[in-house]
Amino acid sequence: MFMRRDQLLIELPEPKNADPDAGAALNEILGGQFGEMSTLNNYMFQSFNFRDKTKLSPFYSLIASITAEELGHVELVTNGISLLNNGPPGAAPMGHPSEAPYASFTRNRAVAVFALDVGAGLPFDSNSRPWNAHFVFHTGNLVLDLLHNFFLECGARMHKLRVYEMQTDPVGREVLGYLLVRGSVHAQAFALALKKLTGVEIEKMLPVPNITHDGIPEAAKFEAEGRHRHLYRFSHEDYADIAGIWSPDETTYDRSGPLEVHDMPPDGGSIKDMPGVPNQFTPDYAPEEMMEIATKLWKKAH
Amino acid sequence: MFMRRDQLLIELPEPKNADPDAGAALNEILGGQFGEMSTLNNYMFQSFNFRDKTKLSPFYSLIASITAEELGHVELVTNGISLLNNGPPGAAPMGHPSEAPYASFTRNRAVAVFALDVGAGLPFDSNSRPWNAHFVFHTGNLVLDLLHNFFLECGARMHKLRVYEMQTDPVGREVLGYLLVRGSVHAQAFALALKKLTGVEIEKMLPVPNITHDGIPEAAKFEAEGRHRHLYRFSHEDYADIAGIWSPDETTYDRSGPLEVHDMPPDGGSIKDMPGVPNQFTPDYAPEEMMEIATKLWKKAH
Amino acid sequence: MFMRRDQLLIELPEPKNADPDAGAALNEILGGQFGEMSTLNNYMFQSFNFRDKTKLSPFYSLIASITAEELGHVELVTNGISLLNNGPPGAAPMGHPSEAPYASFTRNRAVAVFALDVGAGLPFDSNSRPWNAHFVFHTGNLVLDLLHNFFLECGARMHKLRVYEMQTDPVGREVLGYLLVRGSVHAQAFALALKKLTGVEIEKMLPVPNITHDGIPEAAKFEAEGRHRHLYRFSHEDYADIAGIWSPDETTYDRSGPLEVHDMPPDGGSIKDMPGVPNQFTPDYAPEEMMEIATKLWKKAH
Amino acid sequence: MFMRRDQLLIELPEPKNADPDAGAALNEILGGQFGEMSTLNNYMFQSFNFRDKTKLSPFYSLIASITAEELGHVELVTNGISLLNNGPPGAAPMGHPSEAPYASFTRNRAVAVFALDVGAGLPFDSNSRPWNAHFVFHTGNLVLDLLHNFFLECGARMHKLRVYEMQTDPVGREVLGYLLVRGSVHAQAFALALKKLTGVEIEKMLPVPNITHDGIPEAAKFEAEGRHRHLYRFSHEDYADIAGIWSPDETTYDRSGPLEVHDMPPDGGSIKDMPGVPNQFTPDYAPEEMMEIATKLWKKAH
Amino acid sequence: MFMRRDQLLIELPEPKNADPDAGAALNEILGGQFGEMSTLNNYMFQSFNFRDKTKLSPFYSLIASITAEELGHVELVTNGISLLNNGPPGAAPMGHPSEAPYASFTRNRAVAVFALDVGAGLPFDSNSRPWNAHFVFHTGNLVLDLLHNFFLECGARMHKLRVYEMQTDPVGREVLGYLLVRGSVHAQAFALALKKLTGVEIEKMLPVPNITHDGIPEAAKFEAEGRHRHLYRFSHEDYADIAGIWSPDETTYDRSGPLEVHDMPPDGGSIKDMPGVPNQFTPDYAPEEMMEIATKLWKKAH
Amino acid sequence: MFMRRDQLLIELPEPKNADPDAGAALNEILGGQFGEMSTLNNYMFQSFNFRDKTKLSPFYSLIASITAEELGHVELVTNGISLLNNGPPGAAPMGHPSEAPYASFTRNRAVAVFALDVGAGLPFDSNSRPWNAHFVFHTGNLVLDLLHNFFLECGARMHKLRVYEMQTDPVGREVLGYLLVRGSVHAQAFALALKKLTGVEIEKMLPVPNITHDGIPEAAKFEAEGRHRHLYRFSHEDYADIAGIWSPDETTYDRSGPLEVHDMPPDGGSIKDMPGVPNQFTPDYAPEEMMEIATKLWKKAH
Repeated sequence: MFMRRDQLLIELPEPKNADPDAGAALNEILGGQFGEMSTLNNYMFQSFNFRDKTKLSPFYSLIASITAEELGHVELVTNGISLLNNGPPGAAPMGHPSEAPYASFTRNRAVAVFALDVGAGLPFDSNSRPWNAHFVFHTGNLVLDLLHNFFLECGARMHKLRVYEMQTDPVGREVLGYLLVRGSVHAQAFALALKKLTGVEIEKMLPVPNITHDGIPEAAKFEAEGRHRHLYRFSHEDYADIAGIWSPDETTYDRSGPLEVHDMPPDGGSIKDMPGVPNQFTPDYAPEEMMEIATKLWKKAH
Repeated sequence: MFMRRDQLLIELPEPKNADPDAGAALNEILGGQFGEMSTLNNYMFQSFNFRDKTKLSPFYSLIASITAEELGHVELVTNGISLLNNGPPGAAPMGHPSEAPYASFTRNRAVAVFALDVGAGLPFDSNSRPWNAHFVFHTGNLVLDLLHNFFLECGARMHKLRVYEMQTDPVGREVLGYLLVRGSVHAQAFALALKKLTGVEIEKMLPVPNITHDGIPEAAKFEAEGRHRHLYRFSHEDYADIAGIWSPDETTYDRSGPLEVHDMPPDGGSIKDMPGVPNQFTPDYAPEEMMEIATKLWKKAH
Repeated sequence: MFMRRDQLLIELPEPKNADPDAGAALNEILGGQFGEMSTLNNYMFQSFNFRDKTKLSPFYSLIASITAEELGHVELVTNGISLLNNGPPGAAPMGHPSEAPYASFTRNRAVAVFALDVGAGLPFDSNSRPWNAHFVFHTGNLVLDLLHNFFLECGARMHKLRVYEMQTDPVGREVLGYLLVRGSVHAQAFALALKKLTGVEIEKMLPVPNITHDGIPEAAKFEAEGRHRHLYRFSHEDYADIAGIWSPDETTYDRSGPLEVHDMPPDGGSIKDMPGVPNQFTPDYAPEEMMEIATKLWKKAH
Repeated sequence: MFMRRDQLLIELPEPKNADPDAGAALNEILGGQFGEMSTLNNYMFQSFNFRDKTKLSPFYSLIASITAEELGHVELVTNGISLLNNGPPGAAPMGHPSEAPYASFTRNRAVAVFALDVGAGLPFDSNSRPWNAHFVFHTGNLVLDLLHNFFLECGARMHKLRVYEMQTDPVGREVLGYLLVRGSVHAQAFALALKKLTGVEIEKMLPVPNITHDGIPEAAKFEAEGRHRHLYRFSHEDYADIAGIWSPDETTYDRSGPLEVHDMPPDGGSIKDMPGVPNQFTPDYAPEEMMEIATKLWKKAH
Repeated sequence: MFMRRDQLLIELPEPKNADPDAGAALNEILGGQFGEMSTLNNYMFQSFNFRDKTKLSPFYSLIASITAEELGHVELVTNGISLLNNGPPGAAPMGHPSEAPYASFTRNRAVAVFALDVGAGLPFDSNSRPWNAHFVFHTGNLVLDLLHNFFLECGARMHKLRVYEMQTDPVGREVLGYLLVRGSVHAQAFALALKKLTGVEIEKMLPVPNITHDGIPEAAKFEAEGRHRHLYRFSHEDYADIAGIWSPDETTYDRSGPLEVHDMPPDGGSIKDMPGVPNQFTPDYAPEEMMEIATKLWKKAH
Repeated sequence: MFMRRDQLLIELPEPKNADPDAGAALNEILGGQFGEMSTLNNYMFQSFNFRDKTKLSPFYSLIASITAEELGHVELVTNGISLLNNGPPGAAPMGHPSEAPYASFTRNRAVAVFALDVGAGLPFDSNSRPWNAHFVFHTGNLVLDLLHNFFLECGARMHKLRVYEMQTDPVGREVLGYLLVRGSVHAQAFALALKKLTGVEIEKMLPVPNITHDGIPEAAKFEAEGRHRHLYRFSHEDYADIAGIWSPDETTYDRSGPLEVHDMPPDGGSIKDMPGVPNQFTPDYAPEEMMEIATKLWKKAH
């Protein structure tokens, strides 16, 4: 069972411009084979179908609690895409539909998607191919599933880095900087779990690719806060035994400090209000009508 | 941001037998076009991309909080499929791999899937076609998105009813009985939201299809508890203004009582431990090895 | 522009039993790569996009008029599938949904599809894979497009023959017997068109596969009526110049008589009324309600 | 059974320029989830599989006759795409293949499609994803199927409006203006049918999105002719009882006049001749050869 | 560039019976995500796109030469499927097509595929889903690509083992026994390559899953010949430097002997002649016609 | 069984510039429905599943040996795409990842693919849609399969010609010039095989489309060497009886000389070394590290 809080994991900056081409690239990290929908659903279904979870409880807890974090990652990157695609408030073209206000949009890479969903972040990849369940791997064999997860996080890091290399707007860079740090935590967590089971020190292979976050300012600042050493339970009641795998007698792969388990991440950021745009028919009401509706419902709720 | 608790929304019975054909049918409700993955991801991405959410806050809260409930639905139906496919502990065939212990499995409908993931619940439909993002609808136009959601819940109810008509094992029936009740709550909630915006009393169309839950014992018992009148926030902090839409001055569509908002659902059920099976290589460890690993990690975590 | 008449191309017999496995096989001829949806959409889009149609008018007319016939083929095979899946009136299991009246259906090949659409004929193949637009071929090069069409009809005939070999119910056999005859007309028509353009007597390759319809009683009876020699315009106004390609100075490939162009096919058959089934929620009304509705609307229309 | 006439539903203007990017956007309305292929095939297969059609005859006739109109819509939008992609006669680059006459085409959005089918309208969406049968909905439950159709038409209207906002060439605007009007007729027709069955005045929700056609000149001119009040049978023999649903005692949702049933739409437009282009190998014959072939076949047909 | 020899890698036994259900399961190993088409195309495209292959030549040679072996694996498993589906000569039902000789085939799992391609081995998975290029992974980052390949071979071994557990016919067991041995060689080879680059002794994780081949007689006999210690170049001219990775100073992961590079595998087996079946229209000629054709062509070739 | 040699079929020129848009177009010839992956896998699986191959040996040998050539075609076009996408050595942008060196890449057509696989040639089409097994046709009926192959080669030639018309860089033109010549050989070979079986002189339809290679310098030069008259066995041991079909008493369809069978093609070209790029993380090692690794492995291999 899951609960929700109306908060982003981090505060995102305002976008500088609408740049749907950059947004399309970022979409790879949402709905691509190595995007956040894939990490989410892999861990979610592995935790739902975990075998012998009582006996192997720390491994179960590890996968189960990371699932909850991945939900927040999907939320974060979705917000980033939407901000990048739409730009700051007021960036949408004005004019009556009959004036073809969006004519120039046909030259953008994701034009059709933009026309249909006005730049929302949806679980498609950078080529508008839908995320699908073939990207979920589960065999019930714990070593194999963990090996998969370790590989998945390394592949995801490669793709994040290359998409990062194409982002100039602070929104895309912030999203990716944060996800690089957290993804590395997950890669290391799966590596340590594998080590417990097989004895192979596979965490020594990290980082893949072979570049640290020192030169990536949007990631480095989160590491300065120690976030690369923290694993979160995302639960006040359960999953405490992940401390059996992620424990202070281990350090990060770059030896920058001991590993720690926290109940919850630090307070996050507000979710930006995406304004409606009349000639996009979002949300399809004149401002005065919206006020009237809102007032009525507010009274009803109190 | 999302949190997790190690609990199912309800307690599931033990399966009587392994029945992968019935499990395959139930899979439609997980990964089919009108399954729980579809309701989850529709509401999740609609809430992530909601327009003018400050002004239209109750509508945003409605979609956002139902998203959290849908996560629990996906978990529930996944567990149901896994229990149905695998049957009670000890139902798996014994024998060394070289004795072809699973030879008879080639006659089952989902044999290949079974062989690959040992009967796990995965987000595919009843014909093993993957869930995919084309099943997500979002336009940012609130009336249209709500109309979609109302239609989606009606379609989902039809499919649940027909799959229910094929289930004899108590596991599948319990899962579906519960989901029928909760799905009807969501259908009515979206109908009421539409009514606030358009004035059309679309909730009077319910139930679709035209059958009540009276004669469905696994649903009727939850209605006897009033669960068809309760909408949950799934949050201790947020989304309280759904009470503007789901309010005691409305009754259920069958006029059986006033609508109420609750913070959280009543305590749920335990997640069954699916035992590992050596000749399935799950989880790939001899029982004594597992004990040893578990002990070590337990110590580490304390 | 297209018109419609409420008639099947031929009269179909009653099915003897419900046999969804045979229906699943027949579905290959509706939604498979070489099924009627493919022939329909190939010719439809080739006619919509035909180049230099004024100068090459008989070729255009040939493809355009066959398109209209293919619509009737899609209708015919769809009706056949629905009849096979559902069987004669009264074949559906009785009982309240809570009695699991459809439990035994989980053992059928197309169970899930059956549960979802109650055995309707839908454009999926025999493995429930959706028909899709990759099956449409068009290059605008007339020789290449006609070569494709000739190959497509030969491939379609092979698949019809093999599906025919699996049918015992008169419904499936009648549908296929008729389509074998008409498909052979189309194969020969495209062959003759190719001969006009290239001089190659490709019609001498027919029949592919190398079996005549003599021993197939459901096809032979239509040939006895001369239907293998008739090409229909499916139009009272247009496409008369197909007589430039399909003309009496040519005979059928088996030399059984001269080729003739007719305006329309002989009168067809009635479309069977598929009765609603309460526990399938089709059409979701008690018989008395339906009568009342019908009476009201009848009055309104007169 | 269907007949064909060699006419477009309306006369289309000449395109001003070749604009494959605008054509790619228009392709969403042909092969997208809410495009004309979807409306066509939904209604076609719903009519083929209709339950209890004798008793519920006006509902059957409604869906059956709209199917025929949708065939003409598919033809219309296909012609529009082809005209937009190719531009006016003479717009294709000249030069021998070895001079790379189409080199600049690699910068267009649909370049590859263009190269392969020389700009034909084919049933793919604006991202070149194929139309597929998962877009067809049918349950046999009349209320649910009509609710789907109502939602489908509202969704289709949204997408048409947004694609319209990207069109500057008169071809794309004319196609969309006309389809907006006719799609609104269908939305209202399904709404009225639903009202007959459920009593819910769902037509009062229209228009979705909340914008009338007044300011859209290409639509307004067809409304001035009353076409938003006319439902066509597309048949001289059948489907007359749609008058039970679409009747003069109802007005359009904007109260602009009474509803009327007509047998057929007014005379339509000619289908433009798309000239062959030698360096595209369409139709692959020198003009003089084509003349010779044409003469021979003309003689044969007379 | 590739050459071909008309030989299977090993001699296959005759099948005992036609068992298309077992064949369908084996199809997972041909066209599934972890089947031989996946290993083949991963290594083929990684070798085609290898970066800095001169400097990293042994790694390039390793991937390039294993590609050639995988072609033989695809051939082997394809032959196995075809033999299993069709059974020994004479197993096909007799009778004229009009007698519905294949009626009983509609009860088999892969019936439709059988009807269409008469039991051929084609690159689809056990649920008739097509192999597709999303199963190919390549980033150009050598560590990541090798980590992928190591994971892929482990996943492939799991799936082979579980499919093996469903096979009783000697054909399927022989194919899988051999592939288990060779796949393990490839897993170890990629592990050793990774160790050279990263220092991590990942080969110590093997075998995954945790079962040796001792108890699998069809694999054990190949290991008795030392084939689990041999890596083949599949080239007389190139790729000799794989000896830098696969060298006698390493042993197999089970320490059963030193690793050796061979130019080519030992002589293989004959490819069984699949007889044509008249009522399947394969190959569509009467025996006497085939003889006549063969004689003519034989003379021409000499 | 297959062997490999480290050689391209021909020598490719250096690319002049990086042009991923032209590369995307060329990708159609690798992974499109009529690309080299399709010809390869059609012939490969037809040869694996050939019926009555002993009696019909020359036909089997024809398909089997062309398969081997197609592997080289896939290699060739893959190399061409990679060269076109990446350009000459040094064309990749410089700069640390945090400087967004690839920002401008978001404007290219295949940007996302480029970002993910750094411009590798992978089996996707020009719209990044994956090659899939639905493109493989096999029925076991020899006439029908050969007719398919003849059509496939004609379709492939059309697509190659149109992609050629978009290429200005010598790499793409050289690849296509060569493939046009070899594809024409295959078209004619299948035509002659069909003629042996049916008597129809289908080779007289060639060339499709109706343009010779005279004016295409990159093709004409290979014809000047006689390569349009040569069929290769790609085997030193087997397939000699293709001479029964491809024999000196036939000439090319343009009557330019007698047909000849050769054992192997003339010596080919070297495979270009694609240099690693540090900010692409290919191959993820500093040059000095790579040298050290290489030296160690070299010693080990000697």
